[in-house]
Amino acid sequence: MNKENTVVSISASHMLETFTSILMKSGFIPKKASACAHVFTDNSVDGVYTHGVNRFPVFVDYIRKGFVIPDRELTLKSSMGAIEQWEGNLGPGPLNAMAATEEAMRLAKEFGFGCVALSNTNHWMRGGTYGWKAARQGYSFIGFSNTKGNMPAWGATDRRLGNNPLVIAVPYLDQAIVLDMAMSQYSFGAMELAAMKDEKLVVEGGYDTDGKLTKDPKAIMDSGRLIPMGYWKGAGLALMLDILSTLLTGGKATYEVNNQDGEYGLSQVFMAIDNSRLENFQGMQAVIGKIIQDYKHSIPIKDETIVYPGERVLSTRQHNLLNGIPVLKQVWEKVLEL
Amino acid sequence: MNKENTVVSISASHMLETFTSILMKSGFIPKKASACAHVFTDNSVDGVYTHGVNRFPVFVDYIRKGFVIPDRELTLKSSMGAIEQWEGNLGPGPLNAMAATEEAMRLAKEFGFGCVALSNTNHWMRGGTYGWKAARQGYSFIGFSNTKGNMPAWGATDRRLGNNPLVIAVPYLDQAIVLDMAMSQYSFGAMELAAMKDEKLVVEGGYDTDGKLTKDPKAIMDSGRLIPMGYWKGAGLALMLDILSTLLTGGKATYEVNNQDGEYGLSQVFMAIDNSRLENFQGMQAVIGKIIQDYKHSIPIKDETIVYPGERVLSTRQHNLLNGIPVLKQVWEKVLEL
Repeated sequence: MNKENTVVSISASHMLETFTSILMKSGFIPKKASACAHVFTDNSVDGVYTHGVNRFPVFVDYIRKGFVIPDRELTLKSSMGAIEQWEGNLGPGPLNAMAATEEAMRLAKEFGFGCVALSNTNHWMRGGTYGWKAARQGYSFIGFSNTKGNMPAWGATDRRLGNNPLVIAVPYLDQAIVLDMAMSQYSFGAMELAAMKDEKLVVEGGYDTDGKLTKDPKAIMDSGRLIPMGYWKGAGLALMLDILSTLLTGGKATYEVNNQDGEYGLSQVFMAIDNSRLENFQGMQAVIGKIIQDYKHSIPIKDETIVYPGERVLSTRQHNLLNGIPVLKQVWEKVLEL
Repeated sequence: MNKENTVVSISASHMLETFTSILMKSGFIPKKASACAHVFTDNSVDGVYTHGVNRFPVFVDYIRKGFVIPDRELTLKSSMGAIEQWEGNLGPGPLNAMAATEEAMRLAKEFGFGCVALSNTNHWMRGGTYGWKAARQGYSFIGFSNTKGNMPAWGATDRRLGNNPLVIAVPYLDQAIVLDMAMSQYSFGAMELAAMKDEKLVVEGGYDTDGKLTKDPKAIMDSGRLIPMGYWKGAGLALMLDILSTLLTGGKATYEVNNQDGEYGLSQVFMAIDNSRLENFQGMQAVIGKIIQDYKHSIPIKDETIVYPGERVLSTRQHNLLNGIPVLKQVWEKVLEL
């Protein structure tokens, strides 16, 4: 391991304090600084470093640039019953998304199904955060966001599509099953991390500058030509998620975000279902358990363990809470300079 | 082209009459025979032969086996406001799905957002049918279905996951943008068609019996080892769609369908949004137009046209209505024997 890859171990409580204090210096009131610091810390505890500690300096930079405005909150634009349109007012993405998730759950309590469409908000960091939140309170959850253009359409070379993440979550035991995926075969964060660690990707993730498919994350980041997951399928789904986000929120589409000087003012959708009101609520956990049991009985190609979405998070969480969060030294030094 | 690939041209009206008359012989009352024949004919007109004329003999076989019961209709199990649970009673999949789509639109009219969860129904054929239907009436639409297990989990060899199709549709001009995709890199129907035409797949679609990735559709159908689109991503999404379908409907999961003697009694979810009630309704079509315009301005790798989901359907529809629907001679002969 070379010098740049030295890892330091930071306890969750120390990370939380550090983030909170930096955010308070950056214009957050204590309650919101703490809430926002919690999201970045929890994401790091769960092993999603790319949208936790590694991303924190960018978040602070966005505050300083005025892209993210610490004291802004959601305001209601329009209510149609089970679906509401809210304006995000460029508030902090994680806090806006938390509030939108809570409102979707409130609507679900009232109408069985709730949908909150949120315009002019900011990067929610790890979409799974809101899936975990809703599912652990007993709701099913579907959420998606658009992003800036960071992925070419299938058959194209320039990056006009966002890798718009999609999150689906359901309660499971006292935890949750949470799918959280970007529409590129690899999220930009995952490639950055692999590049930082000098690792190759498991499957081809994009083109190099010569137009050849490659597993080298650095070559792909150089060319900017990520491939959509499933080629035309992921490209199509990314386009539809951008259209739906824009249409339901009345907010900005990816192409409009591309015309800005930064990735802000995104469009996001949060859907929640109040499982406890479904006719089959009593047997629900047993049924999910049987689906997972059958899935895990799959015959593996090698000695691999077949895991469900979000399963690995549980052991990472346990490990990082016990042993501290592994952070690249250079990243933590950057944080401490903020 | 060898003998098995001889193509005959069947007019839409003749196909519709033929299907209607066969369905009436199979126990459908005239109105329902016509409605169901329309779905199979329209799918064929739109070029989705695998879920149109090519699938019709299987549908009739399922009626004869008692898997699909012609005179059954939906019954309401439970209503929570914006979400309702309905029992499909093993009625014809396309008619059940049409009725569920209509009910989701009715709920959307009332609550802004409507969700119908339908248990114990049958294969809806082409999921896009219901997306086109809702979007052409001005609604946004999200729908998904589980299927029997026909795809291994990522890293596994046995087929425990369904390739559970997902449909997203929005109105566009006087038509629609419709994404309709199965969770396997190739739908089973697409591989059957390629195999029938003796064509290779564009990208690797699964493993051969030696465990090697291949573009040969026959080899993949022999091994039964399709790959999920986007590898672990499509596998994860397929699992989540099965869980959500089962959980919201209270119906059967893929593993339960696998334990039956045929693919019947599926679980499906239909969501509709009444766009006309959104605050931004007036400018909506212009916004979608701008998104599509930007998307289509992508710089192509070769001389390819960058198309949006559902775009090719329009020219195929035009062509098939003018020139008749191309049907493999052996397929049409099988239909006429029904």
